Amino acid sequence: MFASGGGSNLQAIIDHVHTLGAHAPVVLALVVSDRVAAGALARARSAEVPAVWVAKDRSHELGGILERHAITHIALAGYLRLVPTAVTSAYRGRIVNVHPALLPAFGGPGMYGHHVHEAVIQRGARVSGPTVHFVDAHYDEGPIIAQWPVPVLEQDTAESLAARVLKAEHALFPRCIEALCAGRITLGDDGRVHGADALASPQLPA
Amino acid sequence: MFASGGGSNLQAIIDHVHTLGAHAPVVLALVVSDRVAAGALARARSAEVPAVWVAKDRSHELGGILERHAITHIALAGYLRLVPTAVTSAYRGRIVNVHPALLPAFGGPGMYGHHVHEAVIQRGARVSGPTVHFVDAHYDEGPIIAQWPVPVLEQDTAESLAARVLKAEHALFPRCIEALCAGRITLGDDGRVHGADALASPQLPA
Repeated sequence: MFASGGGSNLQAIIDHVHTLGAHAPVVLALVVSDRVAAGALARARSAEVPAVWVAKDRSHELGGILERHAITHIALAGYLRLVPTAVTSAYRGRIVNVHPALLPAFGGPGMYGHHVHEAVIQRGARVSGPTVHFVDAHYDEGPIIAQWPVPVLEQDTAESLAARVLKAEHALFPRCIEALCAGRITLGDDGRVHGADALASPQLPA
Repeated sequence: MFASGGGSNLQAIIDHVHTLGAHAPVVLALVVSDRVAAGALARARSAEVPAVWVAKDRSHELGGILERHAITHIALAGYLRLVPTAVTSAYRGRIVNVHPALLPAFGGPGMYGHHVHEAVIQRGARVSGPTVHFVDAHYDEGPIIAQWPVPVLEQDTAESLAARVLKAEHALFPRCIEALCAGRITLGDDGRVHGADALASPQLPA
């Protein structure tokens, strides 16, 4: 797991893996942060998960670190640096990100954290929600695995909308990671995602 | 109502107004089409609603036609021509459109009909759905009134997705038109829409 911030998504995954019990297909093997003071590192240590700080000028070391920890899959949760292409290439189909809006809307460079929710409210969109997607060399452009819409209300601020989206993220992202690690989600050579229907929003029956 | 095509949204509105009964806040006073053979014109005549064909080279006559029919509100349903700015200005806050995707994604010039659904499937989005919005001088950029998401499934074709989105359109658009004509939806001078929370998707409780 890569994180730059407080690590609430990390905590959701820690909790989800815990509820899955001994036969979970997911073992949280390493938390990486570019910020030495990231809450995610503290949460990892509290949960007895190996945690390392990799400063921005040492990102070329990431490949070696992942190899030493025998990392098979990577989940980015509020990780604000571009992952080196050597890593995204090596982990093609095994590296995922969560974005707090319904891509392709409200994505791309500069669209992170509160900037996303402010743009959604500024545009007057009536739905938002997390997108979980495979990571490629470009920000927010990888193949989409799941999107869970939530309403945007007239009185919403960026903060109240962020809270609603985050709640959906905390339900969705651990399920996606579990499905990915269990092999139920795959990325085809053609760039299509297979197995994603099972991760459609339970609130939207087809 | 302005339409270029078969008029299934027009039919949904005819049916909705019928169920509202004698005290409906909506009277369907005129159907305009740029295509003489549009199914919408035939549906209008069947429902005894005045129907006029306004060829593309006569769009400057639209203002006078609307005035003669004492039209207070305009709904575009698959109307493929840009409405003259004289009309969009005169009807500011009283002219709405339905777009078959979740704007601001999959909108803009060239994005109509099957092109929209093909683009959604090509990008691999997991949600789509109709957007109802006020119309201004630019395609698909006006203030958004309501968006009802529907799932996009792995086996979807543009046709199967179009059918799912259209079903949501037929439920949503008449409600929006009723709310607008009843004065429950308004467009502020600041470009914000008021009263839209009541039109949030019933499938997405806040």
